[in-house]
Amino acid sequence: MANKGITRRDQDYSQWYLDIIERAELAENSSVRGCMVIKPYGYAIWELIQKELDKRIKESGHKNAYFPIFIPKSFFSKEASHVKGFAKECAIVTHYRLKESEDGKGVVVDEGSKLEEELIVRPTSETIIYDTFSRWVSSWRDLPLKINQWANIVRWERRTRPFLRTAEFLWQEGHTVYPTDEESKKEVAEMLKMYHDFAREYLAMETLSGKKSESEKFAGAVDTYGIEAMMQDGKALQFGTSHDLGQNFAKAFEIMFTDKDGQKKYPYQNSWGVSTRMMGAIVMTHSDDNGLVLPPTIAPVKAVIIPIFNENDKEKVLQYCEEIKESLEDIEGVEIDDREYVSAGFKFNEWEKKGVPVRIEVGPRDMQSNQAVLVRRDTGEKENVGIEKIEDVVEKMLKEIQESLLKKSEELLVSKTHRVGSYDEFKDVLSTDKGFILAHWCGNSECEEQIKSETKATTRCLTQEGADSSGKCIICGKDTSEEWVFSVSY
Amino acid sequence: MANKGITRRDQDYSQWYLDIIERAELAENSSVRGCMVIKPYGYAIWELIQKELDKRIKESGHKNAYFPIFIPKSFFSKEASHVKGFAKECAIVTHYRLKESEDGKGVVVDEGSKLEEELIVRPTSETIIYDTFSRWVSSWRDLPLKINQWANIVRWERRTRPFLRTAEFLWQEGHTVYPTDEESKKEVAEMLKMYHDFAREYLAMETLSGKKSESEKFAGAVDTYGIEAMMQDGKALQFGTSHDLGQNFAKAFEIMFTDKDGQKKYPYQNSWGVSTRMMGAIVMTHSDDNGLVLPPTIAPVKAVIIPIFNENDKEKVLQYCEEIKESLEDIEGVEIDDREYVSAGFKFNEWEKKGVPVRIEVGPRDMQSNQAVLVRRDTGEKENVGIEKIEDVVEKMLKEIQESLLKKSEELLVSKTHRVGSYDEFKDVLSTDKGFILAHWCGNSECEEQIKSETKATTRCLTQEGADSSGKCIICGKDTSEEWVFSVSY
Repeated sequence: MANKGITRRDQDYSQWYLDIIERAELAENSSVRGCMVIKPYGYAIWELIQKELDKRIKESGHKNAYFPIFIPKSFFSKEASHVKGFAKECAIVTHYRLKESEDGKGVVVDEGSKLEEELIVRPTSETIIYDTFSRWVSSWRDLPLKINQWANIVRWERRTRPFLRTAEFLWQEGHTVYPTDEESKKEVAEMLKMYHDFAREYLAMETLSGKKSESEKFAGAVDTYGIEAMMQDGKALQFGTSHDLGQNFAKAFEIMFTDKDGQKKYPYQNSWGVSTRMMGAIVMTHSDDNGLVLPPTIAPVKAVIIPIFNENDKEKVLQYCEEIKESLEDIEGVEIDDREYVSAGFKFNEWEKKGVPVRIEVGPRDMQSNQAVLVRRDTGEKENVGIEKIEDVVEKMLKEIQESLLKKSEELLVSKTHRVGSYDEFKDVLSTDKGFILAHWCGNSECEEQIKSETKATTRCLTQEGADSSGKCIICGKDTSEEWVFSVSY
Repeated sequence: MANKGITRRDQDYSQWYLDIIERAELAENSSVRGCMVIKPYGYAIWELIQKELDKRIKESGHKNAYFPIFIPKSFFSKEASHVKGFAKECAIVTHYRLKESEDGKGVVVDEGSKLEEELIVRPTSETIIYDTFSRWVSSWRDLPLKINQWANIVRWERRTRPFLRTAEFLWQEGHTVYPTDEESKKEVAEMLKMYHDFAREYLAMETLSGKKSESEKFAGAVDTYGIEAMMQDGKALQFGTSHDLGQNFAKAFEIMFTDKDGQKKYPYQNSWGVSTRMMGAIVMTHSDDNGLVLPPTIAPVKAVIIPIFNENDKEKVLQYCEEIKESLEDIEGVEIDDREYVSAGFKFNEWEKKGVPVRIEVGPRDMQSNQAVLVRRDTGEKENVGIEKIEDVVEKMLKEIQESLLKKSEELLVSKTHRVGSYDEFKDVLSTDKGFILAHWCGNSECEEQIKSETKATTRCLTQEGADSSGKCIICGKDTSEEWVFSVSY
């Protein structure tokens, strides 16, 4: 463990991740199994993500609404593969009343309050939303119906890790209804692109995107498309998904519309979502052995001013810090850390661990020479800056950090992508660098399963380029036109 | 029922309320007992409320965070009166897995997945949050701790009505920890005032506020303070609450801090919240027999432009509408309703029911004379306005509507407030105008209970003025210095 209480990545990447989450005060485990508490600093990052995503979702014509957290058990069974996919990880509400225990020492479930039908805490909302849609849709005039929901979700995962896999998480889920398959499929691709662009432009993360294999697709979908990010340890992280639901749910929930030709028809649907899982992707993409590194766009504190003083010059230095803060008033998220009971060095360390993009150090000598010391979180570079130029320099620095983090992410993705021609090569890469492995696969689930059971690597997606690439399946040798992206994944 | 599908208030106020909710497309019942679906238009109003409230909560120094939806049953029992207050209306999770039924026709709860300890879906979060706080607080340096959470809440109410009382609802809950009782009590009053000001300034609603009686206070609180709004039918609606929790929960959850004097002490706490219940208050305060009326601040569509055309002049009129919209670009929430398959009259009706503050009618003749017809939703007043002045007039009109709705609400509250000197007078008022009844009460719960069981009126709150008003209890005749606000309530 490094002196800052953060395990080095090369020592133990998993522990490094947990240390960052703890030291940056993003989240912590709660007393409820698998459920995390998202702490104020972590939640402030999530709010910045939410705000920008919500804007993009609304700009693409979707409206927010809110649907019940509970799903009647019978709804669940209506789409056969859907229930199969989620049955094993459900929180089930069976009673609605507690009563005093007979020994008077606590409360017990009142057996007289058993529900006639059990309710499932939503693990995803297709069923309860499409039950509602069946009442909202009756004519072509009601279409397209483009709805989004921000909600909490519960999946009873056996092994949990903060942000990456938790029993409860937060997400947005888009749910739409279109009169034609073509229009629905178009949006499946558009929302995938929206997530891809959002990751690049806002989170400074490069990703791959493409179709998922049969075995990896969403339970109930015709096709699932996913966004895949590459972590520093060579493992992939699924960042978001967009599902082509075809008419599967429309038929299960009797959503029908009268088309312009007077015919009653089943419409086509899609759904798509990203979750607090993204927070894990952000942590692992940008951070280093000194702590969290944040792209300025999602940094709740973009620059922190840290005064260095002793009792004599305290007031003057603080006054000077206020002046600097004022000159930065056009930049949102500038703070002065004027706590008196901790040292400046302690503060440097703390804000470094929290990933604040720019640190502004201000001591008595800086004050005398009308300057401040700017420190970039991502590179550690220091720069003496005259107070008259400080706003320009901070703005420029924030822009450079954002660009530089994206570039690093792009480079990581390229350097961690390996094209292989044989299963031996495939296994070679896995035993060394890992990363995305591009390999021809015939599409047969037996070949996919063999790779998974022997190497733990799974198909991540079939990119557009990969869909038109002839070669031979690395397992069975059969001719195929598809080169898939494989990886060990989170 | 009126011709617009809305029951008149004087016929059936309850049905009128339900009709408004339905016709304005705010919410609807779901297939899950007691849970509503908040429809896009209703949710857009909620988002505007949330945005402003969130701003005010942050400005008062609170930070958002997120805590688990589940509360272990044992946590619940730690504060004795708390569990008593909520035990009878809990959704209880007992299992975490479904399996195929033996007949293969559906899914059943897998009895092998029974939880060791049942989990309660949060009916309020004091217990789970204060369990967390016990780990966050150890020194005076950690205080004050000022946290807010936006979340969904579940209370298994027997009788439900959209927004007013639903099994699931959305809210914000503030939770804080202070080193001294004085500081905590100060905030209890500040947050009550925050809600009061928010209601006036943003929702155009006047309210009363004050302390609740012992029987009406929050389960586990030392004291509860509430904001009470008066509806058009003379019933009160509790709009928000602020609880002085004293050390009750700190002791139950072992929250302790080392003070500056080196002593370990229990801190003082408060909590406060408002919910989607507010939506019901808004509907009932401002609306009329023609539908919803919205204060412009929370109207998702502030002005709607409705073109009136036939096939020949369609394009020109639509073009002219676009020009009008452009001239209104500084006003957020201006829309053109250019649907072709419904008549202008249908649109007038629809937007009226949805409470859009200003309707802008634009026909071929308006176009020729370079004007438009503006119609105010609250008064129905029409005005011909030249296009060059339209921005000024719409802005002025929105301001006037906001002020006028507040004034109406103030007047309603005054006119529906009755001071009585005897129980007979009290019952007289209840049988005629209802409203807030100011009456002296000795503070004895037997007198309060007698009034409640005989008249259904309950104590709403003790205002500041009421707390210093000598008189005799209208039931027992004892001397008292407290004049309480009574009312039949939602």
